Amino acid sequence: MSFGMVEGDGMTSSSASIDAFHKGGFYLKQPKDMGHRAGIDAMLLASLVSEQANGRLADLGAGAGAAGIAVAYRSEVKATLFEASPIMADYARQTLELDQNQNFAQRCDVIQADVELSGQARVASGFEDNAYEHVIMNPPFNEAGDRMAPDALKAQAHAMSGDDLFEKWIKTAAAISKPQGQLSLIARPSSLHKILSACEGRFGGIEVTSVLPTQYDNAIRILVTGIKGSKARLIIRPSLIMHEDDHDGARKYTKRADDLINGRTFLARS
Amino acid sequence: MSFGMVEGDGMTSSSASIDAFHKGGFYLKQPKDMGHRAGIDAMLLASLVSEQANGRLADLGAGAGAAGIAVAYRSEVKATLFEASPIMADYARQTLELDQNQNFAQRCDVIQADVELSGQARVASGFEDNAYEHVIMNPPFNEAGDRMAPDALKAQAHAMSGDDLFEKWIKTAAAISKPQGQLSLIARPSSLHKILSACEGRFGGIEVTSVLPTQYDNAIRILVTGIKGSKARLIIRPSLIMHEDDHDGARKYTKRADDLINGRTFLARS
Repeated sequence: MSFGMVEGDGMTSSSASIDAFHKGGFYLKQPKDMGHRAGIDAMLLASLVSEQANGRLADLGAGAGAAGIAVAYRSEVKATLFEASPIMADYARQTLELDQNQNFAQRCDVIQADVELSGQARVASGFEDNAYEHVIMNPPFNEAGDRMAPDALKAQAHAMSGDDLFEKWIKTAAAISKPQGQLSLIARPSSLHKILSACEGRFGGIEVTSVLPTQYDNAIRILVTGIKGSKARLIIRPSLIMHEDDHDGARKYTKRADDLINGRTFLARS
Repeated sequence: MSFGMVEGDGMTSSSASIDAFHKGGFYLKQPKDMGHRAGIDAMLLASLVSEQANGRLADLGAGAGAAGIAVAYRSEVKATLFEASPIMADYARQTLELDQNQNFAQRCDVIQADVELSGQARVASGFEDNAYEHVIMNPPFNEAGDRMAPDALKAQAHAMSGDDLFEKWIKTAAAISKPQGQLSLIARPSSLHKILSACEGRFGGIEVTSVLPTQYDNAIRILVTGIKGSKARLIIRPSLIMHEDDHDGARKYTKRADDLINGRTFLARS
């Protein structure tokens, strides 16, 4: 369990594991052999929110809740985890009942609801308009050419809603954000144009950070933040390099990446 | 003349200088005290075209011709420099008549024409449809908040055509490119969304490289390439870091940046 991230720690049943994050700072119950297991992506997403954050945070498409819970663990936010899958929403609820999470669990709740709803149906499902200081999302992706999801639950988590997925998700994010609220998301580089188009007229002051496996590789993820109603120009931040070789030539996390995925620091906006 | 780039070398008149590029590989005649003087941006733009390139290249908004001439100098392309300003087009013609440039000048020509024309007017001005293997551009910018251009010629070079500048320029680029032709451009990060929108349906396989003053700074430029008609996904390349501190703490160009701006290598596509 070198980084205490996604390895089981023995507290497992036949269908679920309880995994330590942030070096045991909090734990996550999630399906063991099916579904989309939380890991580095969720921790990088969480790292976009300041540890000084307070007020309310919405995690859209929260899955088992990893990203929203990580922010709640290391800040004072009240986190609402929105997840369409009843199974995954139930895992998130079980996570909040774990003894290890009682220091912050009372600041979190789970709503089983579909991010892609709009209008009155969205409000009726629990998405409150103009209510959240922070909205975070790790939208599902399953583009042509990706490895196919091996089981139904994972397929649901990764299901594309067609070309307008980011339009729908970011529309909901803008509706529920307070003025000056911060959107934070993690996605694939190939989604960059759709993300920028969906942010147009909703979120400005966009900041883009590329995530590179090593300094020599193309980006595998982008981290994007924006501020509701801002007119500020787009900024491209220095890339986040995940791995480097140590003196023995073994690959390891860079200090920056290790600090971010273990909640020791966050990726501040400019 | 530490990098032989933009310093005058004594061969000046009262209004023009003749400047060495690529360590004296070629020279550029340009207005000394007015207009937009060519420099690092033009050399970075040129570095996006392979030294193996051949066929025809169009430099849109060529100014005094620096970028297109740099590519012609280190490859076998036939370069056409399109420039709207009669004064700058005349400087480009004078550059091609310099004794120092005779090794490649016969492969270059200058057309005084406006990139923003469309339809028959564009063709009549000398923009040949489906004719170029490479199209390069360093479009003018003068956004609100930029330092104002101090003189009229520079103002013309930097004039914004409103919000649709990239739409117009990339539309022309797509019209004159051969199928599978490569678009290469340099721009500000804040133009990223407009560039991606203008490329939609025209150029695919977009590759974006950020240019950072140092590894700790936000990007000041983006280098973008695309292939006409390609359906390939957008890729984000490792950033180009321009400067680092040497052992004495003095700032210097990184080897990578120095090699690129002096034509010793090029920024290959993935």
